[in-house]
Order: sequence, then C-alpha cells, then structure tokens
Amino acid sequence: MSQKPSIPKGTRDFSQHQMACRNYIFDTVRDVFRRFGYAQIETPAMENLSTLLGKYGDEGDKLLFRVLNSGDPFDSVDFGAFRTPEGGYRSAALSKELCEKGLRYDLTVPFARYVVQHQAELSFPFRRYQIQPVWRADRPQKGRYREFYQCDVDVIGSNSQLCELELVQMVAEVFRKLDVRVVLKINNRKVLTGLAEVCGFPDKVVDITVAIDKLDKIGLDAVKAEMLSKGLTEQAVAVLEPVLTLSGSTADKLKAMRGVLASSETGLKGLDELEELFGLVAAAGVDCPVEMDLSLARGLNYYTGAIFEVKALDWEIGSICGGGRYDNLTGIFGLPGMSGVGISFGADRIFDVLTGLDKFPASLASATRLLFANMDEESVKYVLPIASGLRSQGISVEVFADSGKLKKQFEYADRKGIPFISICGSSEAESGMVNIKNLASGEQKSFAKDDTAGMAAFLA
Amino acid sequence: MSQKPSIPKGTRDFSQHQMACRNYIFDTVRDVFRRFGYAQIETPAMENLSTLLGKYGDEGDKLLFRVLNSGDPFDSVDFGAFRTPEGGYRSAALSKELCEKGLRYDLTVPFARYVVQHQAELSFPFRRYQIQPVWRADRPQKGRYREFYQCDVDVIGSNSQLCELELVQMVAEVFRKLDVRVVLKINNRKVLTGLAEVCGFPDKVVDITVAIDKLDKIGLDAVKAEMLSKGLTEQAVAVLEPVLTLSGSTADKLKAMRGVLASSETGLKGLDELEELFGLVAAAGVDCPVEMDLSLARGLNYYTGAIFEVKALDWEIGSICGGGRYDNLTGIFGLPGMSGVGISFGADRIFDVLTGLDKFPASLASATRLLFANMDEESVKYVLPIASGLRSQGISVEVFADSGKLKKQFEYADRKGIPFISICGSSEAESGMVNIKNLASGEQKSFAKDDTAGMAAFLA
Repeated sequence: MSQKPSIPKGTRDFSQHQMACRNYIFDTVRDVFRRFGYAQIETPAMENLSTLLGKYGDEGDKLLFRVLNSGDPFDSVDFGAFRTPEGGYRSAALSKELCEKGLRYDLTVPFARYVVQHQAELSFPFRRYQIQPVWRADRPQKGRYREFYQCDVDVIGSNSQLCELELVQMVAEVFRKLDVRVVLKINNRKVLTGLAEVCGFPDKVVDITVAIDKLDKIGLDAVKAEMLSKGLTEQAVAVLEPVLTLSGSTADKLKAMRGVLASSETGLKGLDELEELFGLVAAAGVDCPVEMDLSLARGLNYYTGAIFEVKALDWEIGSICGGGRYDNLTGIFGLPGMSGVGISFGADRIFDVLTGLDKFPASLASATRLLFANMDEESVKYVLPIASGLRSQGISVEVFADSGKLKKQFEYADRKGIPFISICGSSEAESGMVNIKNLASGEQKSFAKDDTAGMAAFLA
Repeated sequence: MSQKPSIPKGTRDFSQHQMACRNYIFDTVRDVFRRFGYAQIETPAMENLSTLLGKYGDEGDKLLFRVLNSGDPFDSVDFGAFRTPEGGYRSAALSKELCEKGLRYDLTVPFARYVVQHQAELSFPFRRYQIQPVWRADRPQKGRYREFYQCDVDVIGSNSQLCELELVQMVAEVFRKLDVRVVLKINNRKVLTGLAEVCGFPDKVVDITVAIDKLDKIGLDAVKAEMLSKGLTEQAVAVLEPVLTLSGSTADKLKAMRGVLASSETGLKGLDELEELFGLVAAAGVDCPVEMDLSLARGLNYYTGAIFEVKALDWEIGSICGGGRYDNLTGIFGLPGMSGVGISFGADRIFDVLTGLDKFPASLASATRLLFANMDEESVKYVLPIASGLRSQGISVEVFADSGKLKKQFEYADRKGIPFISICGSSEAESGMVNIKNLASGEQKSFAKDDTAGMAAFLA
C-alpha cells in the first residue's frame, strides 16, 4: 500500500544545493558573531504554552501550533462544558485543556525565558545568538512559510549604546562578507514618542510615524493632509513640519530635531542616544551607509530605544534585517530592569537577495570535486587508498558505487556537477599512475599514485 | 504578573558551552561527510501523520507528538462518536480527527519520503546527511529525552558493498578526528536468517541472535540452555554450536561459517557480502578495528544486509553509532527496489564520551579571546578601530559595554573565561599604544596601535 508523499502546506524540504547556500549564509553570520564574542544557544522547539500565550497579542496566540498532550488526553475532558451557544466549541479554552505545549513562535520569548531561568549561570551583559526554526500557523503564501528559520543576535543587561554599535558593526561586516550592498537605517522610539508629545497628540505615535513614512512616495502636502485626516490639528502639523523637511548631515538633522523636541524630555533623550550612537559609528569606522530615518516604525509596540532596519541597495525585497532595543523583555518572567537590544537576520530574504544578485560562490554548486570511475573490483581496490589520501587533504572525493557503463558514471558526474573524473583501469594500476580529467576544459593530467599533493593542486 | 519559567519535561536548553561542544562534534562529522561527497538536506519538523503513522509499530505511533489542527479544529468533530464503553475516548481515532500533522520521530522515514517525493531531481546513488532534532513522547529518564538530535548519513540506490565501506571509512575518520578509540562491529542480517534456516527454526532469528549475544556474559552452556528454553531442539543447537566457538581471523571465521551455512542460499549471500566488505576495508586501509560480530542484532526488524555498531573502547556507554542496510525503504511511499544503507551518530552519547574522556579542545571554553576594558567614552573611541582590526584577523574581541569599576570588568572576563584583557586609558591613547595582559600568566605586552599582527600573535 503505497501513498503519494507530501509535506504539510507552508513547510519546505531543503535540497542539498539549497542547504549549501543556507549554510553559507549561516556560517558567514556565525563567524561574524563569534568575532564579537557572541556565542550560540539553543532552546527546545516545544515551550510550555504558559510561556508563549499572551506574548504576541490575540492574533499571535491564534497562530501558535499546539501540541496535543500525550497519553490519553481526552478522557479527563468534559467537552460539553466548552460548547458555545452557537453549537461550536470555545476553541482557545478547549485547546488549553488538551495541549500544554506549543511550538515556538519566535526566538525572542524563548530567549527571555532562557535568560530568566539561567540567570545565575550567565555573565552580563549576556551576548548570544540563536539560529533555529520557528513555527506560525499563518496562511501560507508566496514568501510566507509556516516553518522558517530565524537568526537572532542580542545582548542583554546593558544600556550602553556600545551594544547598538556592535549590532551595526556586525550587520555591516556580514553584508560586506556576503558582498551585498546595504543601507542600515536607524530610528529611536523615544524620538517618535517625543514628536507625538510636542504636537499634543501623545496617543498618535503610530499615525504620525506612518504618515512621515509616506513622504518620499506622496510628497509633503499629502503627508500633511493625511495627518489632518488622522485627527491632528493644523497647529500640530505645523509643529511637525520641520521634521518633514529635514535635510543635511546627520548632525544637521539632529540639531534641527533638538529644536522641535525641546519640550519633550523623552524626545531629547532619544536624540542623545542617536547622537551617541552615530558618534560611536564614526569612531569605529563602519563601512556601510548608516542613516537616521525618522519614519522607521517597525516593532513600535515593543521597542523602547533604537530601531534598526537593513535594506539591500541592489535588490528590491523589503527589509532583510531588523531589530531594536527593548527595556523590559524579561519582566514578564520575573526579572525586571534588564535592557537588551537585538537584531534578526531574515535568512529567507537574504537567500533571495543572494540568488537574485548571483552572489553565492560557484563552489557551492557541487559537494564533490573528483569522481573515481568504477571499472571493476580490482581497479576499485587500487583507487581506494588514493581517494583516502585526497580526502585527508580536505578534498571531496567519491568512488562510483557500481561498476558498469562509463556513460552512466559520466552522467552521474554531470548531474551532480562534479568537475573532475578519474578513470583508472588495470593499466593504471600496473603502472602506478592516476589520470585525472577536468570535465569542463577537457584538460587531462597523469600523476604517480603517491603524488597526492600534485593531484590536489590540479583539483584546486 | 510574572511566572516562574520552565521548559517541557524531557527537553533541554543548550548553553553556550554545550553548544560549542555540540558544534565541535557536528562540524567534525560534517567535514568528514563532505569529503566523501555527502551533502546535507533538511526536512520540516512537522510531517503529515499519514507519513508517520504505521512506520514505527503501535508503540511508536503512541510516541508521536501530534500537532492540533489550527483554526477551529473542534467544531466539526462529533465527540460522542469516539466514546468507549468504559466512558473514555478512543484516543488514536479522535487524535486523527483533530491532528493532521505530527513531529518527526526519526530522520529515516522523512528521508524515505524525501527521496520518493524528489526522485526526479536526485542523482542516484543519492548520498545525503541530515542533522536535525526528532521528538518522541517517551517517558523522560536519565539520558533519554523527548527532543534530541539525530545525525544520519545514508546512501540510497546501490547494492554495492562500496557503500558499506564508505560508512565504515567515515566512522573511522570521525572518531580519529575526535580522538576517541572505537571498535566498529559488523554483522549481516542474511547470515542471521541463514543460521535460523539451517537449524530448522526460520522464525526464531531474534531468539537465536539474542542468545548468541549473551555468550561473553553467561558462557557456552548457558547459551545453549537458553536456546533450548526458547524451543530449539538439541539437534538445532548442535548445528549452531560451531558458531558459538568461532575463533581466529575474520577469514577463518568466514570459512567456518561457510560450512555451517552451506545449505542456506541467503546465509551464503550474507557471507559473500561480509567477505567483500572486509576485503574492501583491507584494501582501503581503515584505521580503526573493524570486527565481524555475529551477535549484533540491532534493527533486526528492518535491516536486510549489513548491520553496524560502534562502541567507544575507553568509555562505557553502549553503542555510539549504529546502522545497516535496508532493501526497500521507499517501497511504502511507492518507490520499490531502492536499496540503501546508512548509519546514525548518537550525538548525546558522543558528547558524553568526549566529556568523560576530556577530549573537547580547551579553546571551546570561551568564545572571546580579548576584552578591551571600558575606561571612559574617549578611550573607548580609541580602542574601537583596534578591536575592528583584530576582528578582521579572525580574533574574537569584546569591548566592555559600560564604563565603571574595573573590578567588575575583570570579573566579567574571569566568568567568561576570556584569557586576555587590555586596559587603554588616556595615556595609551595619547601615545598610540595598546597594552595587553595574559590573565593566566600575568605576562603583559605593549604594542603600537597599528601593530595588529603583533597583537594577533600574542593573542594566539
């Protein structure tokens, strides 16, 4: 009884080539993190639902994958007690009875849980990164998956802008290594709060930021009209106008903003932070453009200081990294007063950018460098130690598993993109030689069987 | 409202040091796999339950973690229809109504599903490895977890014993690199089938193998008694007796076995396979002991040819790798006649062996090599470019985030095991120098701020 195999919608298999590309991204990122003293942790795929529920809003709660309790989870449940007047069931409440565990929705909440649970063992400021899949019961669509990797790097336990600087440096270094030109945009939540305060509408932070964000697209007059349509007064809009016409260097902009935000303590604090961070960026010498962008509004609900976003300059795809500072991440788990800042690399989008710009190294195309053809049992025994010698030089070598038609063996090399083949029969074995052919150029060379170094150079 | 955080029983957080050790194992394994032309794939954590159910026996089905369907999974279910006469619920049937997906139980079934689903894109023989967590609702106990990593390497689509050889070579190479002495034991399912045939009890393969396995512990007479107690006749036991007293070289043993199995076609085929494999092992020059062990019975239910097991010689822990050949892995998904052979590395046990034998490199203890103390804002700006220069040499460097008491900064370095510290204040900034101190030896050296190479050498 066979069944046509498939996988759940919104999930993916990753082929060998996709994995090679993904590992190239992750290895690059990890190497950069390591140089800044960030080390990896991992947390379980399943968390207690008590850890997860209520952290992502009502919509987020609905997107949690719940894991059915094992054993006989139904016997103790009075299903009747969960009926609705309409004849359905109170799904959230009944789920709680049947499921204690859920799949993690992101890496931030498990990180907060980890820091609180293991605080006695950690050294603060605690620098960590984490690269693991997360699961969301979102409606699958192009570019949105139900299982996807997040790659988060955070430091927690310090208010210093040096933490922000490190993230900026790491972003710049990652994309320098990946050979992708990016711009890193920085905003500060306190500045946005300040803007809403000084114009007299402290509850309209989001509306104001969203309107500012449209400046490039719709122009000054339309932005002002939108602000009015959201309930701001003409007077309030006049207060904000200098923000909409900011120009010059970052220093010029900061100076102009100090005028606008003069009456907001929070706003001025935000400007202080931005000024300090840009000073550190200049001192450290970061080699990617870093811009202040007051329209940057991502994560407005939880960030309390710096807000980051990274965009590729040569490929249209939205932001490929984002993050910010959160002042009380661990409070919900009983450890108040821990300020942290972090950034998340969007692995899927970075993959798409590198694919689009053709920036993956060609060497990722094949795992194997050389295929020894399989002529017969005796010649296989001749090549086996030679293959081992090349492997000990770090070269990836295969011996074709089955003797038989050479055509089939060449086809195998071709399909796998193996660039070199060696055909050793009884005459090579008798003379102690090895022939290696470059399948692309046709160039062929002969080596003494012990000349591993010579072969390695030809295969390089 | 804070809550005391915890994780589901049987799951684990991995700390930075544990991750460094685990990554050391995985990186070693991957590098060896790569040299043999094996490349990585990944499959989703969730598979359709139709893929998983019925593949692991009834007990296995009970150990699957099921994922509740999202949306409103209860509304369409008539719970009454699932009641048992005893007043409980038919758990398996009701679970199927509520859950379409489950967490993968191993990497073998997802691999089989993958090969069938993607057969048109693959080159056969298809060599792949996969390192991912699996989940089992087992009762948690020491050394048994509900989430643990498997590390599987398989080649599918060839009957050649060269495939078995590659696995033997990879095992030997992995443990040579990890500096752990091991013995690799090999058996063949066909030989066991043959033994049961020639003694006239073809249905008692397991009983016979289990009895043989006890030879070292309980001695010849007790093994014979056990066989009798399992229903074998005196005559049958007499037929098997030469197997219990095998001695000499592998060649001697194979010769003696040929006499015992003369009347079993299957048994002789198994001996042919063993003989070919040991011939290839000798030709390739494998540098760990490889032994024939007729008592090896692992995976008797699904293996059809070679059976492998690896034990550490200097640490008592059971097998740390195991595997074998399976002739029809993909048949259940509609692709018959694909023979494969694979081996699984037990990451948790290998971790325990390396810990027990103190074989993890000392360098894994700290991610960070050098800490720049934070004296004040100006001196931080002085050290930032120096830190960047060292990082570009691949050295892991931190700048302490907050200025303040040096004692606290030294404590931080101590807790994190950072071996070098640099304290640069205004006098160093003025003179353009950098002092670096080895915290263990007390040795201190001074460098010109541009002498990155000199610093790197001191830090090495």
